[in-house]
Amino acid sequence: MIVPKFNLWLERDGKVVLSAWRIHLLEAIEETGSITAAAVMMEVPYRRAWQRLHEMEERLGIPLVETEIGGVGGGGAKLTLKARDLIARFHRFADGLENEIEARYQRTFAEG
Amino acid sequence: MIVPKFNLWLERDGKVVLSAWRIHLLEAIEETGSITAAAVMMEVPYRRAWQRLHEMEERLGIPLVETEIGGVGGGGAKLTLKARDLIARFHRFADGLENEIEARYQRTFAEG
Repeated sequence: MIVPKFNLWLERDGKVVLSAWRIHLLEAIEETGSITAAAVMMEVPYRRAWQRLHEMEERLGIPLVETEIGGVGGGGAKLTLKARDLIARFHRFADGLENEIEARYQRTFAEG
Repeated sequence: MIVPKFNLWLERDGKVVLSAWRIHLLEAIEETGSITAAAVMMEVPYRRAWQRLHEMEERLGIPLVETEIGGVGGGGAKLTLKARDLIARFHRFADGLENEIEARYQRTFAEG
């Protein structure tokens, strides 16, 4: 069975600033409260997760994560309000597009 | 300036069967009448162009190119009717999607 697929992302100066994968990374940080745990969830080395996060911050020019040092549980990472706003916007940006592309596929390939 | 980007392709069993790049390759073969010349146009080694072409034929289960051996000009490659049909369908599949995604971006990111 043939299925349509797509990928969606944002670029600045030819470099990725946001993508479905990067949004998942931010959500994993939010969920786990830690970049280390988020990297495990995303099945990438810590270094990769850290790099992608800092790339996003640099390319967008805004802080996405506040890290807390020490405290109960040994500190952690928390998304900024701006990061949460970007997550919400990206979901609105992508919402329904899968259905739209499936409908396009049905109209153009499934017939005849 | 941040810009939205997307990629669109078709998969069978998790493997790419058609994509914008592969459609360009077919069009380059049609335009030049030769896989060698198409590879130059696409700026890939001949081997890569040949592989992608045969992958497509195998995964779709249909012949896409008829090669002619010898003759005036030393033979060449010609698309099958089915290949031309797939090109036309892929363009209908993708047509207007760039505008749709740009409009989505404006609605969700450009505001506020």
